[in-house]
Amino acid sequence: MNFTIDREVLLENLNVISRGLPAKSPMPILTGIKMEVTASDLYMTSSNSDISVETFISDASLQIDSPGKTVVPGRFFIDIIRKINSKKVSLSLVDDKILLIKADRGEYKLHIMDPLDYPNIDFVTLENPLELPAECIKTLIKQTSFATAQSEKKPILTGVHLSLNENKLNVTATDSFRLSQTVLEIENYRPFNITIPNKSLDELARAMDNYNENVSLYFSVNKLLVKFKNVLFQTRLLDGNYPDTSRIIPPSFPIRLKFNKDELLDAVERVSLLSPREKMTASELSYSIIKLTVTEERNVILSTTNASVGDAQEELLPIDTQMNGPIMIGFSSRYLVEALRSFDSVEITLNCSEGIRPFVLTGEKEPNLTQLILPVRMD
Amino acid sequence: MNFTIDREVLLENLNVISRGLPAKSPMPILTGIKMEVTASDLYMTSSNSDISVETFISDASLQIDSPGKTVVPGRFFIDIIRKINSKKVSLSLVDDKILLIKADRGEYKLHIMDPLDYPNIDFVTLENPLELPAECIKTLIKQTSFATAQSEKKPILTGVHLSLNENKLNVTATDSFRLSQTVLEIENYRPFNITIPNKSLDELARAMDNYNENVSLYFSVNKLLVKFKNVLFQTRLLDGNYPDTSRIIPPSFPIRLKFNKDELLDAVERVSLLSPREKMTASELSYSIIKLTVTEERNVILSTTNASVGDAQEELLPIDTQMNGPIMIGFSSRYLVEALRSFDSVEITLNCSEGIRPFVLTGEKEPNLTQLILPVRMD
Repeated sequence: MNFTIDREVLLENLNVISRGLPAKSPMPILTGIKMEVTASDLYMTSSNSDISVETFISDASLQIDSPGKTVVPGRFFIDIIRKINSKKVSLSLVDDKILLIKADRGEYKLHIMDPLDYPNIDFVTLENPLELPAECIKTLIKQTSFATAQSEKKPILTGVHLSLNENKLNVTATDSFRLSQTVLEIENYRPFNITIPNKSLDELARAMDNYNENVSLYFSVNKLLVKFKNVLFQTRLLDGNYPDTSRIIPPSFPIRLKFNKDELLDAVERVSLLSPREKMTASELSYSIIKLTVTEERNVILSTTNASVGDAQEELLPIDTQMNGPIMIGFSSRYLVEALRSFDSVEITLNCSEGIRPFVLTGEKEPNLTQLILPVRMD
Repeated sequence: MNFTIDREVLLENLNVISRGLPAKSPMPILTGIKMEVTASDLYMTSSNSDISVETFISDASLQIDSPGKTVVPGRFFIDIIRKINSKKVSLSLVDDKILLIKADRGEYKLHIMDPLDYPNIDFVTLENPLELPAECIKTLIKQTSFATAQSEKKPILTGVHLSLNENKLNVTATDSFRLSQTVLEIENYRPFNITIPNKSLDELARAMDNYNENVSLYFSVNKLLVKFKNVLFQTRLLDGNYPDTSRIIPPSFPIRLKFNKDELLDAVERVSLLSPREKMTASELSYSIIKLTVTEERNVILSTTNASVGDAQEELLPIDTQMNGPIMIGFSSRYLVEALRSFDSVEITLNCSEGIRPFVLTGEKEPNLTQLILPVRMD
């Protein structure tokens, strides 16, 4: 194996490959990147317990002297290519023991691993793709992934659920305290029901960072393969039945308050500076409870009380108020902040009821996106 | 106590005050900021075991309705003022129990502490200042503080030593593996010998971040007071005798290699990607050993060998070479990187000898700065 390639091209592909590279692995070979050079192309593969990534390069800058296969120490290889300044790098195998990397006046020798030890990655067959714009997938991930469960208590909730039925793709995430849901029109594709691990989606969003064209999705029973430009990105799916969330969103709300999103975000962040921090469990982030009050006189107030430090309150000026009575609800400020940040809309509406019935955020620019939050009991 | 002030002015002062605020303290009152409002001015004070800071504000935007004193929870107060968007904030005491902060439509109430419990801070008398430009002090800190010891094994080495004698101010830092030294001409000031804790210097550099005019230094037996604009910044000094470092820097070097600094830095950082990491002690950072070789043919090579991963080498092209024989020395790449970064010079010279005699870096733009590194034995 012996070839030369533009460093920029190699690095761009390694950045995608790094998405599938485990930091540690019970199988040491998986900390390596598999490289395979054919007569005309370079293939690279990485894989961990959730994700496998393959890129194939047939770039004009790729000059192959001899084909071959190897597995190189992943992190070291990426770090070196990242730190190099040269325009070109040349890579060659020495005695089938060492990968020699030459760049300008630098020479790097990495001990390689046996490509025969690298497990065979079974990619889903490239048939019957569902085509979607990359932007659309990145938006779905941004709108839902944050609301998945972080703890493994109910493993199925650590994933984002996608269900296609009657030309509607429902995308749902919940950690049982809040729920994100967005709906997409999809024509001419067979129904499916899958749950994708949240980490895989976060890595997919990063892998597609600079890519804005069409993406093809291929489904198997337990895997999803995403193909874009020269990349195959495959993730395992989560086993088990996703809970039925269709009846969680209340059909109507007695109170609707419309706000400028940024003003509301600022006020929530300020008030929550003083809200008492509680740890739910070791795996959950600390969260803090704030209170929303709407008085008979239509004054809207966010507030919090912290016995050891003090109180905070901000009066909000809604752009529009529809109500038929006063309310007082308490909820996690983090949930509200994260829900608000998932919107691109400038104006968002808080749809709520008295007591501990869930409330829902909607945005004027994103009619298909619903963010639901379960209040907590305030005594 | 009741006054109004521009938020920007208050925040700028709180950013300086935060330099003296401990995260935790065996004396809970010290986690507070002492505020004192006179008929015309606002004073704020913070203090921890090393540093005390006082700022006094008589800004045009300060409107005092009634004077008073209090101690407010430091972190919470700073966080709130930081997050507020309003142009003005008003602060008042309610029943001598609560500080009420009003800003636009927000109201924040903080439980206060008794100002009588706040310890009296003994600032050094404002007599006989040594005047220096702020830029000069920030440069001294940048050039030396990084080379102090991080561990408390020899407490005196955790400080930067300043000694004024015969119109020369010697500024020295060493962790016994490397040494930074810079010399400054100072006219008409009495001799002194002090060692300043590294953390105090780092905080001082941050406190002076946006300040570039003259600074006054006042000395007492065990304290240094730095006065700039409306700020008093005082630090304790370290007890004990600083070791005599005057004979550590070798008087001459058989080999001098001049490099472009950035090229050398890049090469060191690349080669050290593969150098074996070793932990010295829990309190020291991990460091890695690289090797510099100059051959008879005047080839200059940086290299490293890592039994488990591989080898790296970079050939360097010195701008100028003076030598009378080949050498091979090994040293910590981190020490070389940090020493190089302390220079503003574009070209730096490596002055070295064979074996384990210390080598020295000098820069064409900074004739008074010397960075010395002790090589390690290479077997």
